[in-house]
Amino acid sequence: MPDREHTSKQFEQQLRALKDKLLLMSHHAEKMIADAIRALVERRPSLAEEVIKSDDEMDQLELDVDNQCYEILALEQPVARDLRFIATALKIVRDIERIGDIAVNIAERATELIQEPEMKRLIDLPIMAEAAQRILKESLDAFVNSDAELAEKVIRDDSFVDDCYEQIFRELLTYMMEDTKYISRALKVIFIAKHLERVGDHSANIAEMVIFLVRGQDIRHGTRLDRR
Amino acid sequence: MPDREHTSKQFEQQLRALKDKLLLMSHHAEKMIADAIRALVERRPSLAEEVIKSDDEMDQLELDVDNQCYEILALEQPVARDLRFIATALKIVRDIERIGDIAVNIAERATELIQEPEMKRLIDLPIMAEAAQRILKESLDAFVNSDAELAEKVIRDDSFVDDCYEQIFRELLTYMMEDTKYISRALKVIFIAKHLERVGDHSANIAEMVIFLVRGQDIRHGTRLDRR
Repeated sequence: MPDREHTSKQFEQQLRALKDKLLLMSHHAEKMIADAIRALVERRPSLAEEVIKSDDEMDQLELDVDNQCYEILALEQPVARDLRFIATALKIVRDIERIGDIAVNIAERATELIQEPEMKRLIDLPIMAEAAQRILKESLDAFVNSDAELAEKVIRDDSFVDDCYEQIFRELLTYMMEDTKYISRALKVIFIAKHLERVGDHSANIAEMVIFLVRGQDIRHGTRLDRR
Repeated sequence: MPDREHTSKQFEQQLRALKDKLLLMSHHAEKMIADAIRALVERRPSLAEEVIKSDDEMDQLELDVDNQCYEILALEQPVARDLRFIATALKIVRDIERIGDIAVNIAERATELIQEPEMKRLIDLPIMAEAAQRILKESLDAFVNSDAELAEKVIRDDSFVDDCYEQIFRELLTYMMEDTKYISRALKVIFIAKHLERVGDHSANIAEMVIFLVRGQDIRHGTRLDRR
């Protein structure tokens, strides 16, 4: 049965506005992660404070996206793939909002770490953070462009983020083993790396949803919804 | 403008089926967490293995809930509060599914820990796990019954889960400080406690969504959607 695709101009405009808002939100989340890591590496507590404050904006953006989705659902009553697209947007917005929370957590840890003497120069953490930000951006690009190939790349690249975590963890373990005075600080850095790993996980989750959205129709053909 | 509440009998039945499926999924997630912790405490690798295998069922349940939501949206075209209820279900199902993933992570760590000598009897971890499971259950009860007071209790009780984490963390830190041979094992237990803390966070997130769903209509009266 062919999709009863909605093609009205108003619907297209609303969809474009929704996509733009999601990209804006993702951009905001990427910046929060970047700033939280920069605050730590450059030992700038005021920048960490800015990250913590900027989370309010994320909450507002989530609300905006939700309301845009409700409006499209109530007024346009999309079906089939369009409906799943909106439903996926409702899910994705939570992943992005959660990444904002993670950035706040990193900023809080950074604030603690800045108050203690520097244990070592943090070389791998910014590399890991950049990789996590990049796949977050790509996962959203994949969503708004229904690009399953880019989504697959995100999932592959998430394993690089995981490998970064493993490397950072092992290195810091050697500090902890060497001298117990390093334990507390090394743990904080490990937790920050763990937070970045979760940013990668959220991005991979978004990518999985995109693949399912784009290709799932083929494999899920004949679901109850489509059969009616 | 009054809500155009859907009151058709079919809609009520579909809603009931959706709620039942969400409760089933939550119950499954609670059991996975309980089993993963029991596998660790009772040192039963086969039980940990069962938890890891049972995640497939969670994925299927998520798919079922999603499809139920799509069906309701496409066929009943709910508006106002009913629409927000379905949209919230689409979000909540991801939190529950994520808790299943967390249980798998705990089971994997447990499998590693069981292979090493026991460091200490784990007393607080099961207490923390029980608290996390309870608020997960209560957050879902709050959702299906639109019970904002219960949701508020969940958010209060989540701070107990956070306190448990802090206590476990501090205790394990003393082991690490005492002898570097404990570091690796203590870290694994800390990570498990951190996972349980995240179960609490997910439950609190669900509770927040419930409060917004139940009470948000008052404070958000006059949003664009309602004004039309």
